[in-house]
Amino acid sequence: MGNCLVAQSGGPTSVINATVAGVVKANQMNPYYDKVYGGLNGIEGILNERFVDLTNMSDEENLILRQTPSSALGSCRFKLKRDNVETFKKLIEILDKYNIETMFYTGGNDSMDTVAALSEYAKANNITNHRFVGCPKTVDNDLILTDHCPGFASAAKFIATTALHTWLDVNVYTRQEVFVLETMGRDAGWLAASACLSGCVDLLILPEVPLDKEVFLNEVRKCVEETNKCYIVVSEGAKFTDGTYVAAGESKNDGFGHAQLGGAGNAIKNMILENGISERCKVQDLATAQRCFASEQSLVDVTESFQLGMSAHMRSTDGKFTGKMVGLVRKDIPTYDVDFEAFDAVEVANQVKGFPTEWILPNYKGISEDAIKYLKPLIVGSPTVIYKDGVPAYVKPYFMR
Amino acid sequence: MGNCLVAQSGGPTSVINATVAGVVKANQMNPYYDKVYGGLNGIEGILNERFVDLTNMSDEENLILRQTPSSALGSCRFKLKRDNVETFKKLIEILDKYNIETMFYTGGNDSMDTVAALSEYAKANNITNHRFVGCPKTVDNDLILTDHCPGFASAAKFIATTALHTWLDVNVYTRQEVFVLETMGRDAGWLAASACLSGCVDLLILPEVPLDKEVFLNEVRKCVEETNKCYIVVSEGAKFTDGTYVAAGESKNDGFGHAQLGGAGNAIKNMILENGISERCKVQDLATAQRCFASEQSLVDVTESFQLGMSAHMRSTDGKFTGKMVGLVRKDIPTYDVDFEAFDAVEVANQVKGFPTEWILPNYKGISEDAIKYLKPLIVGSPTVIYKDGVPAYVKPYFMR
Repeated sequence: MGNCLVAQSGGPTSVINATVAGVVKANQMNPYYDKVYGGLNGIEGILNERFVDLTNMSDEENLILRQTPSSALGSCRFKLKRDNVETFKKLIEILDKYNIETMFYTGGNDSMDTVAALSEYAKANNITNHRFVGCPKTVDNDLILTDHCPGFASAAKFIATTALHTWLDVNVYTRQEVFVLETMGRDAGWLAASACLSGCVDLLILPEVPLDKEVFLNEVRKCVEETNKCYIVVSEGAKFTDGTYVAAGESKNDGFGHAQLGGAGNAIKNMILENGISERCKVQDLATAQRCFASEQSLVDVTESFQLGMSAHMRSTDGKFTGKMVGLVRKDIPTYDVDFEAFDAVEVANQVKGFPTEWILPNYKGISEDAIKYLKPLIVGSPTVIYKDGVPAYVKPYFMR
Repeated sequence: MGNCLVAQSGGPTSVINATVAGVVKANQMNPYYDKVYGGLNGIEGILNERFVDLTNMSDEENLILRQTPSSALGSCRFKLKRDNVETFKKLIEILDKYNIETMFYTGGNDSMDTVAALSEYAKANNITNHRFVGCPKTVDNDLILTDHCPGFASAAKFIATTALHTWLDVNVYTRQEVFVLETMGRDAGWLAASACLSGCVDLLILPEVPLDKEVFLNEVRKCVEETNKCYIVVSEGAKFTDGTYVAAGESKNDGFGHAQLGGAGNAIKNMILENGISERCKVQDLATAQRCFASEQSLVDVTESFQLGMSAHMRSTDGKFTGKMVGLVRKDIPTYDVDFEAFDAVEVANQVKGFPTEWILPNYKGISEDAIKYLKPLIVGSPTVIYKDGVPAYVKPYFMR
């Protein structure tokens, strides 16, 4: 038989390695592939034949890999352009050389586009010995078709917990105080909205609803007048009604055509201070930690991420599975459960699923009960963390060995 | 018999409530006091007779209180000045009215000064029916005499974990990248130094060692040249060799004569970018979360905080214990263990224990093995967190009821 390859792309999450662990474990349970290669730094490393052999990973390493955040195989932001025929050719040559039948690629919508492009290229050139399978991951939760994305729930849980605990902190003094929590979320408000799971968010600013400064500041004023405090959550991608980013002063481009944001929290703070609404305003920008703080993994999330890797492996053993992304479909039953389902990667590629506007309450007052009903089951449960010397044990990144 | 009163002061920690839980539990085990009152918002609330009755707290509430961060009784920054005789008189009147024999006060060095001042006032005025006992708490770990302060270890654990996980995140791309983690620590570098428990800190800037810009930037340059990355930790209280704060642009006064800092991380980032040492530099300011993120409590810390409250209660039943702070003394044995010991509060008051300079490596290269040996046992173990709907269960602050 041939081999398979698993690689990671895009921004890391705290459970992205669990999908790799799932592929590896599935192949140990059913050794369909002779070898499971890990490709280092996504397409970038694969093109340079930077592989590690994951086939015989021990169960202990597999377990610790699942609690290791960030991409243990390394990541890249390589955009595979469809007109770059030379790159496609080179990649196929390498897959031939290593006898790689199936390439599993974890990532967001850019990565699903890569999966789609590679399978289209293979089809157009009658290449039948290589198949391409996508596994979703993104803290942003903005992929379409799948109910949610592995990685999101753990970030959501960290955000909700941080919101709860900082809210408790903000309230300890009798003095007036406004607190602004900034989360990631360039185009979609899923992460910011998940702070509402704490039950303590007064006002919420999402990218989906333009920020009307006057209406918003009026709500802050009312809240401060009534309670002497105001707990605000803002998404980095929040925009004013004129379309400019709230964090505009600090935005720049990341080379993918995505604006690189940061500073929405401070912009809101300045707005509140300058308008004399409160004398004190603190900001917490959750920054990088929210996507990688793995001590607060959701058990549902890490389990689904692992099983999704297994499901992708299992499906690939029919010898025909290509150009697909394995996603999650929530069962229509009272208790929470998911089915794993395959979708065409091309349909997911380059699409963004925003936070549903029908779930957003007017006047920045947070999210509806339906939204809470969707979010709550995702953050339930905590895996038992294995510690070493007081900090969580981790697998040394394969690209560092 | 009479009653006792427990109150909290200063900045909250993630285990400060465990000391209150300890006082309450000790009185249930030995009902020396008829009632255990909780004073709301420290001295501020006590002067307004804002009390709650904690005497019959259920075991379930006691357990959840221990995992609830921030001051459940509320806090204050009230500075009791020795020449303000009226305030002393009023306080004693209130203690008389409620028949309060012993007042337990948790806090930092300002609070220990309050304990000292109150017991001095009582002694000078032949008041023998009221006693004053201090219980240390501060994430800053800067109180003298006690080996360490409850609250510090949990913050240290959160910081070390966040450092580890963000370091893993920073490394996933092949591109050049510098990361700056900013921690609290106005005068003492304990919190910043604890990031080194992650084993991944390249450079460390503490308030104890003036920042020589040229030497530091040279170290950053060398690190980036060798590894393409550099992971830097900076304390908010870092100062340049001329004595000005690194975060100077953003500092102001908090009314206690303490500079309110923030922005050291961004200042370091700008320094690195402006000097062309790296094209990319990210900052994570741990801000409020580091002192209240209680899902990452250290088991050692929360246990010691609880037992310290019990110890204070036990000692107070001799009817003479006053003007004291109960502290922790590390046993001189190979395995980690502590004794509880009483110190004169006046000796602790207004003193600051910096991070020992002999534990600091030259050229911002981190901390010595002796320092690691001191820090490591403090962050070991994690209590079992009780969750409710995916977020940690908590006791609703008593001042909100």
